Amino acid sequence: MIGRLDSLIALALQEDIGHGDITTDATISSDARGKAVVFGRESFVLSGSYPFRRVFELLDSDVRIRSAFTDGDTIEADVPAFTLEGSMRALLSGERTALNLLQRLCGIATLTRRMVDAMSGGSCRLLDTRKTTPLWRELEKAAVRHGGGVNHRFGLFDGILIKDNHIAAAGGVRQAVERGRRHAAHLLKIEVEVETIEELEEALDAGADVILLDNFSLEMLREAVICNRSRALLEASGGVTLERIGQIAETGVDFVSCGALTHSARAIDISMEVNFPEAWLEV
Amino acid sequence: MIGRLDSLIALALQEDIGHGDITTDATISSDARGKAVVFGRESFVLSGSYPFRRVFELLDSDVRIRSAFTDGDTIEADVPAFTLEGSMRALLSGERTALNLLQRLCGIATLTRRMVDAMSGGSCRLLDTRKTTPLWRELEKAAVRHGGGVNHRFGLFDGILIKDNHIAAAGGVRQAVERGRRHAAHLLKIEVEVETIEELEEALDAGADVILLDNFSLEMLREAVICNRSRALLEASGGVTLERIGQIAETGVDFVSCGALTHSARAIDISMEVNFPEAWLEV
Amino acid sequence: MIGRLDSLIALALQEDIGHGDITTDATISSDARGKAVVFGRESFVLSGSYPFRRVFELLDSDVRIRSAFTDGDTIEADVPAFTLEGSMRALLSGERTALNLLQRLCGIATLTRRMVDAMSGGSCRLLDTRKTTPLWRELEKAAVRHGGGVNHRFGLFDGILIKDNHIAAAGGVRQAVERGRRHAAHLLKIEVEVETIEELEEALDAGADVILLDNFSLEMLREAVICNRSRALLEASGGVTLERIGQIAETGVDFVSCGALTHSARAIDISMEVNFPEAWLEV
Amino acid sequence: MIGRLDSLIALALQEDIGHGDITTDATISSDARGKAVVFGRESFVLSGSYPFRRVFELLDSDVRIRSAFTDGDTIEADVPAFTLEGSMRALLSGERTALNLLQRLCGIATLTRRMVDAMSGGSCRLLDTRKTTPLWRELEKAAVRHGGGVNHRFGLFDGILIKDNHIAAAGGVRQAVERGRRHAAHLLKIEVEVETIEELEEALDAGADVILLDNFSLEMLREAVICNRSRALLEASGGVTLERIGQIAETGVDFVSCGALTHSARAIDISMEVNFPEAWLEV
Amino acid sequence: MIGRLDSLIALALQEDIGHGDITTDATISSDARGKAVVFGRESFVLSGSYPFRRVFELLDSDVRIRSAFTDGDTIEADVPAFTLEGSMRALLSGERTALNLLQRLCGIATLTRRMVDAMSGGSCRLLDTRKTTPLWRELEKAAVRHGGGVNHRFGLFDGILIKDNHIAAAGGVRQAVERGRRHAAHLLKIEVEVETIEELEEALDAGADVILLDNFSLEMLREAVICNRSRALLEASGGVTLERIGQIAETGVDFVSCGALTHSARAIDISMEVNFPEAWLEV
Amino acid sequence: MIGRLDSLIALALQEDIGHGDITTDATISSDARGKAVVFGRESFVLSGSYPFRRVFELLDSDVRIRSAFTDGDTIEADVPAFTLEGSMRALLSGERTALNLLQRLCGIATLTRRMVDAMSGGSCRLLDTRKTTPLWRELEKAAVRHGGGVNHRFGLFDGILIKDNHIAAAGGVRQAVERGRRHAAHLLKIEVEVETIEELEEALDAGADVILLDNFSLEMLREAVICNRSRALLEASGGVTLERIGQIAETGVDFVSCGALTHSARAIDISMEVNFPEAWLEV
Repeated sequence: MIGRLDSLIALALQEDIGHGDITTDATISSDARGKAVVFGRESFVLSGSYPFRRVFELLDSDVRIRSAFTDGDTIEADVPAFTLEGSMRALLSGERTALNLLQRLCGIATLTRRMVDAMSGGSCRLLDTRKTTPLWRELEKAAVRHGGGVNHRFGLFDGILIKDNHIAAAGGVRQAVERGRRHAAHLLKIEVEVETIEELEEALDAGADVILLDNFSLEMLREAVICNRSRALLEASGGVTLERIGQIAETGVDFVSCGALTHSARAIDISMEVNFPEAWLEV
Repeated sequence: MIGRLDSLIALALQEDIGHGDITTDATISSDARGKAVVFGRESFVLSGSYPFRRVFELLDSDVRIRSAFTDGDTIEADVPAFTLEGSMRALLSGERTALNLLQRLCGIATLTRRMVDAMSGGSCRLLDTRKTTPLWRELEKAAVRHGGGVNHRFGLFDGILIKDNHIAAAGGVRQAVERGRRHAAHLLKIEVEVETIEELEEALDAGADVILLDNFSLEMLREAVICNRSRALLEASGGVTLERIGQIAETGVDFVSCGALTHSARAIDISMEVNFPEAWLEV
Repeated sequence: MIGRLDSLIALALQEDIGHGDITTDATISSDARGKAVVFGRESFVLSGSYPFRRVFELLDSDVRIRSAFTDGDTIEADVPAFTLEGSMRALLSGERTALNLLQRLCGIATLTRRMVDAMSGGSCRLLDTRKTTPLWRELEKAAVRHGGGVNHRFGLFDGILIKDNHIAAAGGVRQAVERGRRHAAHLLKIEVEVETIEELEEALDAGADVILLDNFSLEMLREAVICNRSRALLEASGGVTLERIGQIAETGVDFVSCGALTHSARAIDISMEVNFPEAWLEV
Repeated sequence: MIGRLDSLIALALQEDIGHGDITTDATISSDARGKAVVFGRESFVLSGSYPFRRVFELLDSDVRIRSAFTDGDTIEADVPAFTLEGSMRALLSGERTALNLLQRLCGIATLTRRMVDAMSGGSCRLLDTRKTTPLWRELEKAAVRHGGGVNHRFGLFDGILIKDNHIAAAGGVRQAVERGRRHAAHLLKIEVEVETIEELEEALDAGADVILLDNFSLEMLREAVICNRSRALLEASGGVTLERIGQIAETGVDFVSCGALTHSARAIDISMEVNFPEAWLEV
Repeated sequence: MIGRLDSLIALALQEDIGHGDITTDATISSDARGKAVVFGRESFVLSGSYPFRRVFELLDSDVRIRSAFTDGDTIEADVPAFTLEGSMRALLSGERTALNLLQRLCGIATLTRRMVDAMSGGSCRLLDTRKTTPLWRELEKAAVRHGGGVNHRFGLFDGILIKDNHIAAAGGVRQAVERGRRHAAHLLKIEVEVETIEELEEALDAGADVILLDNFSLEMLREAVICNRSRALLEASGGVTLERIGQIAETGVDFVSCGALTHSARAIDISMEVNFPEAWLEV
Repeated sequence: MIGRLDSLIALALQEDIGHGDITTDATISSDARGKAVVFGRESFVLSGSYPFRRVFELLDSDVRIRSAFTDGDTIEADVPAFTLEGSMRALLSGERTALNLLQRLCGIATLTRRMVDAMSGGSCRLLDTRKTTPLWRELEKAAVRHGGGVNHRFGLFDGILIKDNHIAAAGGVRQAVERGRRHAAHLLKIEVEVETIEELEEALDAGADVILLDNFSLEMLREAVICNRSRALLEASGGVTLERIGQIAETGVDFVSCGALTHSARAIDISMEVNFPEAWLEV
């Protein structure tokens, strides 16, 4: 935000380009202009338009980038997601960094969409986790939203999530929840992670606002929903797969959280074809 | 290098911790000390020891981290890769960032090792590409080395790789190679990407030092090796999978390059168990 | 966090010292060592020990700083809060930056303590606001805690506070609250600012978790408490003075927030007396 | 200068906004546009126009900010100091940071103006000190100028001010002054701080260009002026209040310096009213 | 690249201007505009147009800078290299930093040109070294190209140059070359530094791609060329002067490298004459 | 200061080393340790000990660097200026950056010393200028002091120097001097540049504290001294050479300033010999 993202993108370009794209500088004249189209070789949900554009804009303030799509749209294979026009050097030098970001983010959005679709209706919602690529969390969490998921806390600073170690250190669930309430801002809810129905009861008694049901079986999840009596929000985590997510959602929990959305999404196969003006016209 | 990596790690910690780990600060006293063990739930090739350690050292200069392994070692499931001892707050607050880095890097090293093993002997070597996670290329390229691969150029600045667009702009393979030689430092070789045997001949005639054979079938690769007569180094790329890499290597090419090593390696499932001193003794 | 604070302190030193403390460099030899005591000319609540120490440590890694107090302690006039021993140049060059920070932070802690004392018992708690000195919010919010207050949200990113403009844009209180719930992380509560009892009712009906009662008279506050029937947390703001805060707290609201804690706290009159070793002995 | 100030303003925005203004993002659409007026609830001297404008420009390069005033102008209560038009999100997200800076700087300029007015004629001039808010000295010193004061040295690097510790270390006033002259650039004058008439005589004999009369009574100041016989510039400091500053100026000293201008100026009560276009038209 | 150079230029301006050009701010009104011409007092080869322009553009985005020349052109004495028009304050405040950079870079380009001319024909080419001014290597290596030279490796990261210490550590030339090949990217050649004909033979046998002939006499250079039989590229270094470079080139080596190009080039005497519009018209 | 210098040195190392010293990493094992001696091939005045040491310390915190000399000492040819012991990789990787800085700074100190010696006695002192290498002014001005010179203002922010353009803009010498006094801090003197005796008289009448006599002949300088009658300090500049500086000093001016000290000092020929422990013992 306010320049942080642009700084990271500029650093990423520096990482790849260093003191110069020596191949391009040697073979392409500095005033050559070109066009390019970017398209997937498979259908995907778009995410990452902003960093994709910024890569080229940082290299050539005159580049023109157009798209018929916005983040969250589904784009079919071979349909142009972006067309670019500008300095040929900028197009070639920025391609790899731009695609490295775009392919990953579209991968996350696309996997999220499939997961959300697999939950098929109902009020249960899909959450991400903090298992993101270091330094790119903001973009990856946006990709989850573009795919139809919702974001869990952004980091350790904007949500209380009490785990077993915190409970042990505090001397019990009740004490840990009380400490959380006393020290954290009053606009924050308290979430407690539990591994058994007994712990769930304890957390509910302690007044937890949200309960993380860690690695509960489907049966345990159903029991937890009954036991909860809508006192707290329930979040299921662990073992969340495309095959199983629908069943988890049907147990009645409010949220399912899934680290794989960000740490295991497959990169989408996206290509950029650069063309010289003449070639372009022939197309 | 010289602080760049530490700066990125510190930024990654800031991304996750922000103005504070409010759960830990609320429930764990600032002078509590603890221990932790880190182990995989599957066998893996270790990589990322440096960033893993630095995460905790940046949070607590007194943390002690020990390991019986160095990067490149294979570690079996459930065998402790690291043991840590230090401020309990630092252990808990650094856990996610440290594991996010470690799991990814071990994933790359492990996939590389499997690929290398699948090439089974011979002199053909496995190369990475520039399809790395932006800002973490240095670590990901190290992970490839830990897995037994070798690194292709680091970026656009330290290797000449002439592709079709460069050739088109320069007016032909010969002209492009000449321009590369004239503008680039004399310590750099010239690599040219080709898609047909005809283009290969043309590149060899132009004096290319290395030829990238893009998406060649096994048959074409064999033909290329014969055609080359050891004049240039040959690098095969495209469609490189665990199933196919052995056959590619057997064609006689010098190198196989594979983007999947870095853009599609699955994160290794690695856990950190934090224990209070009492619990620790019981183990 | 993780270096951000140290970076700001180093920048603050650069602002004051630039390319050198030319007076000290001209008159004090680089190996002269000295001692100093720091004390208030009035009683105060300590805050800012960390930045105070870091100023000198950044200038001289060998400086020794001791104190019988920790942040939150009350220190009487003329009682040494800190004693320092180290490079005379570092003591003199760091004095102003260290005191500029310390005096302001102790001022905030001291004012907060007086406010808290004026609330005399009861369960009502004192909150700060975002009216802090740009770039020093983390320290100023810590000072509020040292004085006995609790922190409101840290910034715009870790708490939902819906004001009139948000309500107008969303098309009503209900719609705004719904949007807040849909877009924000599920660990965040929703606070709504209201100016009349009617708006309070509306916000309660919309399911707001916390209500900010802006500029309510004491009478209105009492009415709000009755009307609320413990459904939401109530926060009173506006016109909070030392004289009035006790009465506000007695109305039964849960929180009182006060911007003056950070934007209008008077700096404490704190001095640093530097002495040469000989002089020191005579004291 | 040259970006330093803009960097600090961007950091201040990051401090407040972090990864996003979640309330505004949830309730206001990204293409909503709005207007705002900024006015004081009391009369004040304007300062801080530049940082006020930059806050919004950094958030929205298309924002339009207009004002009938320039820094140093007096603006009456309820008179619009600025009108803004642009992205509604930018107006709301930037409001607090912009006002936090503006209110403080106008407070300094206003207090300075009152002090200068209290000196009522004569040639004595009002100086600021280094008791400024760390990192914002450049803006606070500009505010002093906008109020009619003049700036003392900017930091430790652009002026020689010899205090008792320097004198003790150098072995006497004469030695300290000589050392100052020898080591400092020849474009810098030498100022010496004295606490008695005897020390004043000594400093004058040593050839000091400027004498800081620390905590002199009115009577002592008059004696110092006579004793000086216009040899050096005289600067009075200590116990400078609105009530007393006129009398100090009348003693004939050349300058009065006052730390309260920057460390104790009360923030001006300035509000920003944001309106949707419709509402705006009704006004 | 991508902002790194602009960051350095901005830092250089900060170094000179700090919190303000106090002379200019005191004597020139902020809205005064002026013109300036920049010309050498001797003939020179132009280099540094980019940093020269950026200095002024960073100070005044409206400045207009024109030139009839591009880097690499020879400009005669007293011929305007640049004309500038813009804020008078920006012209005066940026002058010194802009000229400090320009004079140095033109000095390097001019010396390189003279060296290249002294090699008079033939295929031998002139190389620079890493003996550049820290932080300005990119610009200084560009200046060498503008003068007609070619660049050696940019740093320690993009070229293998094995010296005696590396050989000693590796256990011999052959081992060192092998290690180089095994660890470095396959696009990098291997250069070995030798001091005798025997070492040259050894390096050729080891398969070095390039040989650095350190401090060879003309006779030894001729012998080396014969001995080499075009197996490796030969680079002569040491004792390269204007007088001697022609003879070195004639020995048949492929390259001559010369540290003096960057570490000993004399700054060109370039002046900037600033004029007020009236004065300008009279010229 | 406070990290600024260390940041620049770290950046300089990054410039040279980038993602790694690939030659050294390939041929020298990471645990090899070595020693080195640094000595001049000619006699020189030492300057730059701090940056020389920091280069290696940043690469290897365990490196031990010893010297029998401090900055300002004269060191004869072939006498070890520094001995180093530490990681062999650090010694080799840091060598070039360390020497690039050291050779330049010793060159400046040595030239300054020769100039000062050529002034042979008398009270006239040698000043530097702002014609320094961008970003390294602090070190170059220290080198001038180590050579026996004194520093002129550090930048545009800590000294008033009124030149012809300022005079023209202000409407005359008197007006320019008055404006300088009114706007600048009272601890700064006012220097005025003049080109004729008439202008000198005018500047003296206007009350200038220091007069810069630009390109005055020896005769004019003598006349200026007489004309001045010790009212202002006189600084001669222009055409200052080793041959002429003695005569200039004898005219009675207070200062001679010389840009060549920093922009034209020849780098000292300094070598670093790295040895493996065995070899070392044999020496």
